[in-house]
Amino acid sequence: MSTQLFRNITLVDQNFNIQGGKQAMVVDQGQIAWIGLTSKIPKKLKVQKEHDLESRLVIPSFVECHTHTLFAGSRADEFEMRNQGASYLEIAEKGGGILSTMKATRKASTSNLLALTQARVNQFLAQGVSTLEIKTGYALDLKNELKCLDVIRQLKGPQIVSTFLGAHAKPPEFSSYELYLDYLAETVLPMIKKKRLSDRVDIFIEKGFFEKAAAEKYLIRAQEMGFQVTIHANQLSLSGGADLAVHLQAQSADHVIHLTEENIKSWASSNRTSAAPVAVLLPAADLYMKCAYPQARKLIDAGIDVALATDFNPGSCPTQDLSLVGLLARLEMKMTLPEVFMAYTYGAAKALNRHLQEGRLTVGRWANFISTEASLTDFFYSAGAMPSHDLFIRGKKINLK
Amino acid sequence: MSTQLFRNITLVDQNFNIQGGKQAMVVDQGQIAWIGLTSKIPKKLKVQKEHDLESRLVIPSFVECHTHTLFAGSRADEFEMRNQGASYLEIAEKGGGILSTMKATRKASTSNLLALTQARVNQFLAQGVSTLEIKTGYALDLKNELKCLDVIRQLKGPQIVSTFLGAHAKPPEFSSYELYLDYLAETVLPMIKKKRLSDRVDIFIEKGFFEKAAAEKYLIRAQEMGFQVTIHANQLSLSGGADLAVHLQAQSADHVIHLTEENIKSWASSNRTSAAPVAVLLPAADLYMKCAYPQARKLIDAGIDVALATDFNPGSCPTQDLSLVGLLARLEMKMTLPEVFMAYTYGAAKALNRHLQEGRLTVGRWANFISTEASLTDFFYSAGAMPSHDLFIRGKKINLK
Repeated sequence: MSTQLFRNITLVDQNFNIQGGKQAMVVDQGQIAWIGLTSKIPKKLKVQKEHDLESRLVIPSFVECHTHTLFAGSRADEFEMRNQGASYLEIAEKGGGILSTMKATRKASTSNLLALTQARVNQFLAQGVSTLEIKTGYALDLKNELKCLDVIRQLKGPQIVSTFLGAHAKPPEFSSYELYLDYLAETVLPMIKKKRLSDRVDIFIEKGFFEKAAAEKYLIRAQEMGFQVTIHANQLSLSGGADLAVHLQAQSADHVIHLTEENIKSWASSNRTSAAPVAVLLPAADLYMKCAYPQARKLIDAGIDVALATDFNPGSCPTQDLSLVGLLARLEMKMTLPEVFMAYTYGAAKALNRHLQEGRLTVGRWANFISTEASLTDFFYSAGAMPSHDLFIRGKKINLK
Repeated sequence: MSTQLFRNITLVDQNFNIQGGKQAMVVDQGQIAWIGLTSKIPKKLKVQKEHDLESRLVIPSFVECHTHTLFAGSRADEFEMRNQGASYLEIAEKGGGILSTMKATRKASTSNLLALTQARVNQFLAQGVSTLEIKTGYALDLKNELKCLDVIRQLKGPQIVSTFLGAHAKPPEFSSYELYLDYLAETVLPMIKKKRLSDRVDIFIEKGFFEKAAAEKYLIRAQEMGFQVTIHANQLSLSGGADLAVHLQAQSADHVIHLTEENIKSWASSNRTSAAPVAVLLPAADLYMKCAYPQARKLIDAGIDVALATDFNPGSCPTQDLSLVGLLARLEMKMTLPEVFMAYTYGAAKALNRHLQEGRLTVGRWANFISTEASLTDFFYSAGAMPSHDLFIRGKKINLK
């Protein structure tokens, strides 16, 4: 891509305070080459294309760092059962729940899965998401998990980060969680590594599911193979997942609803090494699950990096609405609006270990941004509606149908 | 409009149970002229246009019966203040709140207000809303309330029901709520009647605002002039508004979060006369206001008709998301999915006294319906997303841009 100049823009600083003066940004090969006051644009620039953004607000585009976007089938029927009193566990024990998604996902063809998933990816793109994480974990066998990773590789639109979540649930073919983890470590992970289908491994740590000790063994093997790790931690109980994430220097610990003061303290302490996990908070899931919201205030005040994400999935959080996520963070988790923006840009990028490449608009990072006539306060305010905007990924304007 | 035949449709009964067999509907002059099994379509019909809906689900379209869609200005800034600790009353006392919307709305030209409001109306239309109630109440003086009613009359798309809510707040020109109500009754209501701009009068009854005794006097005068009445009742306290609604046979009592067993009992008793108010429940406002959700289960189980609506407004509920409203009713108010559908169709139509004209698909009612490839369980499930559908109003398919 050629060198572009974006003139006459309103920029925010790293804390989402509006900067004074008319700003400009030079983008070369998709990266920010220069940024500053319009009056100080370097004279020697060879600009191929110039854009006057007419004082519009320019902010980093959103990074959606925790989703289960790839699945077949629907669990909409179960939702009514659950609201009428059946618990998550009861539905699972009846052979519904995640195993019904597993059956549909295993059965689905690559082209069918691709079409289903691409439509959902487009919904994220339309909300200003330039980078989208997608987990596997609904196939739970070698052949079909690889099929899912292959589908993820074919998706178009945003930048896609794929995460292998084979350890999402135990498939019926295995008699114990431990044996299934051995299978994943011995058979599936090496194949993913060999085919370079993903470099991230996730696991759902919870009492009665993948427990901490078995998970630790599995994640260490994954790290030894060169995978980055991330953990579904402390969603339903004090499962030890958050502590393990700190111990293993995982990229993130996600959900983290149940945390003791000690958990937070040791997490914050580890942050001094700058390798502490990001706390990925998923309040829309908490709304659907009717559980407590995470203690965002305590985490932030302790100096722990926080990200927000939808947790979009067919079971416990069937919404892709970023506005709702940020709204709940503001209403229920006492996060300020700037904190919500940071969590959905820099924090989320850090959860994916991409914070040096994006999440802020500085020289050397990708030119991934939103331009809008709206104000900052119009975001994460109206549930179901993202303010009208243009999305640029690596300096290129995305055309939405 | 000519006679149309819709063939090969999947219909629901009044309780939103799927009916067996391939059904058909004959629409004449926008009204349902015949409905039944495809095999029993009357032979003598002169059909001008035939539609094969390919087994798609056909349900009554949505009636959105409580909105404040007409306003100028934005209160997005205040939202951050409120989340950071300022109360609704504190913001109001600082001259913010509803009075800032009043200033912007008074100042706005008819054409500006029309453009702003039409864009919001289109958002409702896109969600399958065939009938939309819009209240005034942000101008609070004769000239500008009439301007607002005039704007409402010019809106296009759904069927519009306008409600005069002069008694929304006390404008600064008046020293007491009672004097302002006298002004409305003596000066404004006769003008609205004369110009036939609305036949519905609403009032916000609350301790410290329009109190019950003054409201009763005002509403009786409105009724004597031939207006139907409806009440913002028992939102913040046991204000007496719900009892007054029952006593005056108001069309609806809206919000009704604070209700004693006695309130519900007398409301249910009055239902035997079939002139009891509909309980209009507004859970999205409760989410934004962080207050309790209304006792839907008790109201429904007592035999009181219930409606759901967004309460879309710039202060306490800046969302137009019907999906979120129904989702909250399912998650937080223990309403079943069929009850949510009924509340957003028949119940809402009844709140507007239009239940004999719409809200169900029966002979003689308007052919206001949605056709969709989705299942019933796909509705009110994914926050921010209404399933893809076509909307027909009076038998005519609405083209959305």
